[in-house]
Amino acid sequence: MNKVEVCFSPALYKDYENKEAIVVVTDILRASSAIVTAFINGVSRIIPVGTLEEAKAYKEEGYMVAAERDGIVRDFADFGNSPYNFTKDRVHGNEIVYSTTNGTHAIHLASSGKEVLIGAYLNLSALANYIIEQDRDLLILCAGWKNKFNLEDTLFAGALSRLVLEHEGYETICDSANGAMDLYDLAKDDMLNYIEKVAQRHRLKVNGLDDVIEYCHLIDETDLVPGFRGDSITIFNK
Amino acid sequence: MNKVEVCFSPALYKDYENKEAIVVVTDILRASSAIVTAFINGVSRIIPVGTLEEAKAYKEEGYMVAAERDGIVRDFADFGNSPYNFTKDRVHGNEIVYSTTNGTHAIHLASSGKEVLIGAYLNLSALANYIIEQDRDLLILCAGWKNKFNLEDTLFAGALSRLVLEHEGYETICDSANGAMDLYDLAKDDMLNYIEKVAQRHRLKVNGLDDVIEYCHLIDETDLVPGFRGDSITIFNK
Repeated sequence: MNKVEVCFSPALYKDYENKEAIVVVTDILRASSAIVTAFINGVSRIIPVGTLEEAKAYKEEGYMVAAERDGIVRDFADFGNSPYNFTKDRVHGNEIVYSTTNGTHAIHLASSGKEVLIGAYLNLSALANYIIEQDRDLLILCAGWKNKFNLEDTLFAGALSRLVLEHEGYETICDSANGAMDLYDLAKDDMLNYIEKVAQRHRLKVNGLDDVIEYCHLIDETDLVPGFRGDSITIFNK
Repeated sequence: MNKVEVCFSPALYKDYENKEAIVVVTDILRASSAIVTAFINGVSRIIPVGTLEEAKAYKEEGYMVAAERDGIVRDFADFGNSPYNFTKDRVHGNEIVYSTTNGTHAIHLASSGKEVLIGAYLNLSALANYIIEQDRDLLILCAGWKNKFNLEDTLFAGALSRLVLEHEGYETICDSANGAMDLYDLAKDDMLNYIEKVAQRHRLKVNGLDDVIEYCHLIDETDLVPGFRGDSITIFNK
């Protein structure tokens, strides 16, 4: 049987690490939703970098750079972390370098797994289908907020766990996966109302960046599954 | 306003650390339930030690020692981690040295807080009342399982957060506290059925140690509030 596990924070990753697993990294508000959107809009590849220094170095080499910290776009960058920034006219056919508060660190961490995928509600079913085809353990890594647990990534982890576990050949005795699924079941019928209580919503609102919350919770807007390999994110299922 | 926060794992403690807070350590199955039981049965103090070597050294000095790893009592120890071991005839008027897989480490970690309390369902309301009297921030530290998130400690954290937040002067925007409360609300009316899914239940069952689950979920069996100060746990509210 393949197992499904959920890790609520990059700081716990070493305790959940599974080199044989497909690792899905999620940062719903907003990095993983932005990455999926960039592929919907035709980006050719995304290079996630951990530090602002690396991002700046790429900028000096002429790359288009998206970079934010705590939700705020950095002055040297072309744009920040809102999915609305990754428009077709900006990204189509281009390479983008991307650095965020939590998301890009989590992506690099996850690369000890067999394969790293980028997960969002926007590509939920496609992700589940791709995972099931690989017939391996699944580990969902929530990017969290500065190592803290966050609800929006947890709810997504619950949604994806639920979908994959509906399929024969998968099981879980992971408390994080079970807790995440119960929270998702509680929230799913009125997600935007539930999300009202999420700390990240307050952080985004303070900076006028909460306009993306509804968009980031749209389900199945694409069947693209981006994944990370080598130094960049590309489409894995086409 | 005083804030309520929940930390799901000792490995995340540094990200939640709050030197001004009352820190409640919980390890429902079974260390914190066992500690509260020992005080119900008249133990004079408990010395929590992190390593088995320390526990052994105390034993050689003549102390009564409770020590387990992965639920199994160690051969040099007088007994292990079941609340049922801390009987009146064994513990009344005695000092006990105690070392467990997750609980004692969490207690030492928490001592960077203003005050460290030991929390279980057995003393839930007494704990909430004592905390409210102190009029400080509250941080609940779940001992977890080898740094992983666990549901039984989370549910307790939800129960205690709910009680304290009913009181004027407390608020939370902590996603862990909100998630824990939602899970507790979901589980509370049929707790023993909910606990069926918990990974620790399976671990205990394998070793025939799951006879304590119902007892560890009894609410308000005592009004004693044990706390950790210096090198030992004593009663703080008498």
